[in-house]
Amino acid sequence: MQTTEVLFINAIVLTMDDKLTQYKPGSVAVSNGNIVAVGKQEDITSQFAAEKIVDCKGKLLMPGLINGHTHAPMTLLRGLADDLRLDVWLMGYMMPVERKFVSPEFVRLGTQLACAEMIRSGVTTFCDMYYFEEEVAKATAEAGMRAVCGETVLKFPTPDASYFDESLAYTQDYIKRWKDHPLIVPTVAPHAPYTCTEELLQSSAAMAVEHDVPLVIHLSETALEVENMRNQTGMPVIPYVKKQNLFNARVIAAHCVHVDEGEIRTLTHHNAGVIHNPSSNLKLASGIAPVKRMLELGLSVGLGTDGPASNNDLDMFEEMRLAAFIAKGISGDPTALPAPTAVLMATRLGAKALHLDRITGSIEPGKRADLILVHINPIHNSPHFTRDPHSIYAQIVYAAKSTDVTDVMINGQFVMRDKELLTLDEEVLTRESQSYARKIDLFLIEREQSVLAKLIEIGGATEEESFEVQAKVPIKDNSAVLSALDRPEIEIIYQRHYKQYDTYFGFEDPKQGHIRFREDHLVSSAGQVTNVRTRLTHIGETSEDHFPQQVILSRSRFIAPAAQSLRFYREYFKPASEREVEKDRLRFLIRYKNTEFYVNIDTMLKPPLGNFLEVKSRTWSRKDAEHKARLIPELIECLGVSSAETISKDYIELIHD
Amino acid sequence: MQTTEVLFINAIVLTMDDKLTQYKPGSVAVSNGNIVAVGKQEDITSQFAAEKIVDCKGKLLMPGLINGHTHAPMTLLRGLADDLRLDVWLMGYMMPVERKFVSPEFVRLGTQLACAEMIRSGVTTFCDMYYFEEEVAKATAEAGMRAVCGETVLKFPTPDASYFDESLAYTQDYIKRWKDHPLIVPTVAPHAPYTCTEELLQSSAAMAVEHDVPLVIHLSETALEVENMRNQTGMPVIPYVKKQNLFNARVIAAHCVHVDEGEIRTLTHHNAGVIHNPSSNLKLASGIAPVKRMLELGLSVGLGTDGPASNNDLDMFEEMRLAAFIAKGISGDPTALPAPTAVLMATRLGAKALHLDRITGSIEPGKRADLILVHINPIHNSPHFTRDPHSIYAQIVYAAKSTDVTDVMINGQFVMRDKELLTLDEEVLTRESQSYARKIDLFLIEREQSVLAKLIEIGGATEEESFEVQAKVPIKDNSAVLSALDRPEIEIIYQRHYKQYDTYFGFEDPKQGHIRFREDHLVSSAGQVTNVRTRLTHIGETSEDHFPQQVILSRSRFIAPAAQSLRFYREYFKPASEREVEKDRLRFLIRYKNTEFYVNIDTMLKPPLGNFLEVKSRTWSRKDAEHKARLIPELIECLGVSSAETISKDYIELIHD
Repeated sequence: MQTTEVLFINAIVLTMDDKLTQYKPGSVAVSNGNIVAVGKQEDITSQFAAEKIVDCKGKLLMPGLINGHTHAPMTLLRGLADDLRLDVWLMGYMMPVERKFVSPEFVRLGTQLACAEMIRSGVTTFCDMYYFEEEVAKATAEAGMRAVCGETVLKFPTPDASYFDESLAYTQDYIKRWKDHPLIVPTVAPHAPYTCTEELLQSSAAMAVEHDVPLVIHLSETALEVENMRNQTGMPVIPYVKKQNLFNARVIAAHCVHVDEGEIRTLTHHNAGVIHNPSSNLKLASGIAPVKRMLELGLSVGLGTDGPASNNDLDMFEEMRLAAFIAKGISGDPTALPAPTAVLMATRLGAKALHLDRITGSIEPGKRADLILVHINPIHNSPHFTRDPHSIYAQIVYAAKSTDVTDVMINGQFVMRDKELLTLDEEVLTRESQSYARKIDLFLIEREQSVLAKLIEIGGATEEESFEVQAKVPIKDNSAVLSALDRPEIEIIYQRHYKQYDTYFGFEDPKQGHIRFREDHLVSSAGQVTNVRTRLTHIGETSEDHFPQQVILSRSRFIAPAAQSLRFYREYFKPASEREVEKDRLRFLIRYKNTEFYVNIDTMLKPPLGNFLEVKSRTWSRKDAEHKARLIPELIECLGVSSAETISKDYIELIHD
Repeated sequence: MQTTEVLFINAIVLTMDDKLTQYKPGSVAVSNGNIVAVGKQEDITSQFAAEKIVDCKGKLLMPGLINGHTHAPMTLLRGLADDLRLDVWLMGYMMPVERKFVSPEFVRLGTQLACAEMIRSGVTTFCDMYYFEEEVAKATAEAGMRAVCGETVLKFPTPDASYFDESLAYTQDYIKRWKDHPLIVPTVAPHAPYTCTEELLQSSAAMAVEHDVPLVIHLSETALEVENMRNQTGMPVIPYVKKQNLFNARVIAAHCVHVDEGEIRTLTHHNAGVIHNPSSNLKLASGIAPVKRMLELGLSVGLGTDGPASNNDLDMFEEMRLAAFIAKGISGDPTALPAPTAVLMATRLGAKALHLDRITGSIEPGKRADLILVHINPIHNSPHFTRDPHSIYAQIVYAAKSTDVTDVMINGQFVMRDKELLTLDEEVLTRESQSYARKIDLFLIEREQSVLAKLIEIGGATEEESFEVQAKVPIKDNSAVLSALDRPEIEIIYQRHYKQYDTYFGFEDPKQGHIRFREDHLVSSAGQVTNVRTRLTHIGETSEDHFPQQVILSRSRFIAPAAQSLRFYREYFKPASEREVEKDRLRFLIRYKNTEFYVNIDTMLKPPLGNFLEVKSRTWSRKDAEHKARLIPELIECLGVSSAETISKDYIELIHD
């Protein structure tokens, strides 16, 4: 008779081993954090005496679930912004808030919140990718959970590093400090091929190889990513990262939504793990990964929740169900991805995808004791048929809820008993997370109140304020003014011909002014469009000052290159109204009495308001502005137009009238 | 100051009215089962004194959820058979078990189990379609739930009626008895166009109109249904049912997965309600309904779980999330079906689809008090942002769980308080349902043990046992035998030419014999295939008796017309092995010494075993068999073949050798 620390008895044991062996009633012996034995109850109890007997009362005893991909601290951003397009969500909300709020404290609290939620729902191991990852590692280890913790490296500044060599140095140190921890696998996580340089990918792979740790990355999440990669490098994403030696390391690749058969074979050949994130891929409309085919080709595919800001929870029972459902729905084959496979993906196969299958993912002697108990006959999962041994997996996948998990043991230590968390204080976590949410709410409310602030937030430091003096006069026809430009008082420095397509966003509060999205089509002398540029301008409500004869010192303008599409700005600014203006513009830079002016001869096409002469000049001081304001009526008269008819309105105001 | 029965205070009230008005903190006054007032807490409490104050402690108070389509008693078949194709699932498992087990007691228990699960998950109203529907109505009313209860009518015999006029008569009486019940709307539910005759559809519609009740039906669930309808009637499903006057009634149409724009417009025009069942449609791989377009065109679309045998639960929180997820995933647009819409579909819009929007689906004065309380800040739903008023809907759809529902009031009566069910005893229900499951398990285990029993189960009474005497001799070439058939002792009654393609299923236990799936291609004298028929034969292991000279009295054979595909039988019988046999057969019915025999001249093509002469005759008595057994060797010799080489094996046995 051997002695063991803990003996689980009276359980339906699902080992998830390669024969999917079940024992009913079954028993598991645990010592020193290891699974010592598993088998029929009579066999195990006749062999082992235990210091502690855990009576499972007929519950299911199975391996803890593996959440193969998440960004744990983002629990603090759960539900911040939903039902938005990826770019608006990411660049309009997530990134500005992360830039402002992500700190070691934020990361610590967010990780604790995530651990509490994951333990409650039966997760014992997760794979993380975030900033200040050493804080994630600390909080996870304290909560008693197992995790692969990948420090994110990017070619852009991040909340924890201004340059990527800083990131790499931090990661190097962090990996060294944590490498032999019993629960944590510290790693490097280059964010994605499109957010990393080639050098960064190569250095990350080399670092992972040097320390013999896996490498975490997002690959082929969206069709756009693949399209851009093809345009830039002539190849899809997987061959590209192979070329960067990524597969020298043991890769854990999240998503792989848009990969072809050849890429699946490459991933399989290099023993990469792939993490399928059904909720996130559907919610962000990224697409649906070819999981059925991946499994057929022998790829290790695990399941993940992705970050709780795009899911919005960390519930692996939902991911199992959804993985099975969408594989069937998409293939038209209800036998696709059957229940036992879904459970495997969340256990043994998931562990394999994280390169952790030697220590977790199934109940087999020698593996660490990562175990959960699940109440299998609550009212929503009654009755229970036993004819087909696979029906227990169908019960787990199609009817069980994460709230049916009652007990969780990780590395031989209980972290939840009878639904009571043993390592985390939920009340404190809820309260503290709510206080963060209030701060973030206030920050965003303030920003949302000001269209200008919203523009600055996404513009990437484009507070290019410009003051102009300007005057505008309706004219009958353009030819007289064009002839007048030949006068000797006027020197033409250069001239351009544009077609300008403007969309003005208006807001309920007129104090917000307008946002103008302008497409400038440069027209050659042959009448061809030779260049298109887009810019975004915030036009304040009121002019700064008026001068005699309707010359105005114009509104403060904030100009940003319009890097995103009109659609992006529409969804981001949510204007109350939208107006389109189209005009043909002959633009001259001239010198008159030693002063430079822009002279625009505009033909308004939409709406057809007629022709206008506009004279403008940038200015920088009150004195300079007054000087130019005096010259403008003179110049107008010199161009053969009566300055008496000058108006002091922007085109958008003319339309509103 | 008015007095009211119950006053809810200290709640986040989501009214789900047409402006999506929220009150925080809000209050709701209930009297006589009606919502009397809803508003800001200060306004309501200054206006009403209450007999009973319910302090909601900051929880969400919202309308109870509407499960728009289910088959409640099928809780008792939950998890019976999963990951199967629709036909195997339905005809191989559901229908045989229903034929055997469905009774008033079964329906009552299954409904109670369903009500317990639905109340727990915040459902206050459901729409049902099953057999013995009056029992569903009774059990539902006793549980205190609101439901539309549709008695299923079909052109086939059902568990509660042998003929459909019986069904219609029962339904007529049932509707009369229940028409004025405060909780139950009794209705008629023609199962689907493909399982009803035109007369049945028309009679059902007329009955619904006569009693002013809605009509429940499955429409356009699978692509096959639409294809068959087009082949049979030249039109898709919606125009077809319109022609049967279905839309004279207020229709509640489940599924509508495969409908085109015109059909959506027809449904909208006739004010039909459509119920979208995302889990069931994915799990059975039926397809994905064009919900986004339906909503754009103003159709009332609710959500349903479908029966718990194809889901496998009754969780409307899952359906809300899944509806939002797949609409985004399929359209590639993450703004599709946003959270507020998903919640609307499960509340006010769902009530409208059931033609019950005047009494339930939102918190508005005058409607019945169908209310639920939801704990909105558990660990998996923390923190909570308030900047965007829509974020509360995102919390419900993307992170809340059905287990967050704590209290349920229906028609002004609490049926759950603090997660305690008040009208149902879960322990008893779980125990009794488990006892049913054991019986069903035993029935299926017994059936599964016998291939013959499985065949009979699906064959629809085809125990066409046939005994034959037969003998088989290898021959060199066919021409000599063909010439011998011209002898005067032999009269040819008719002759046929077949190509026969046989698939033999073998099983691990040889005692199970074989199942043969045969395709008979009848070949004309011109060499054209003029007819194809398929049949299924069970070939027992041993012959019944042997006669001298290898003539055998053959195995008992059960023959069934093979109404399903080879693929169906493969998935249903799950054979351990499969062999294909292909032969060319010249088949003669002849008379020899006043006795009829079949003479087959077979050329084995796959495997190429050579040519055989086979002589067979049906028999019915020992005496007759002995007589024919004596004649067969004679006949063989008469055909110029040595009867000494006769063998007593079936072709499948020759291949195995």
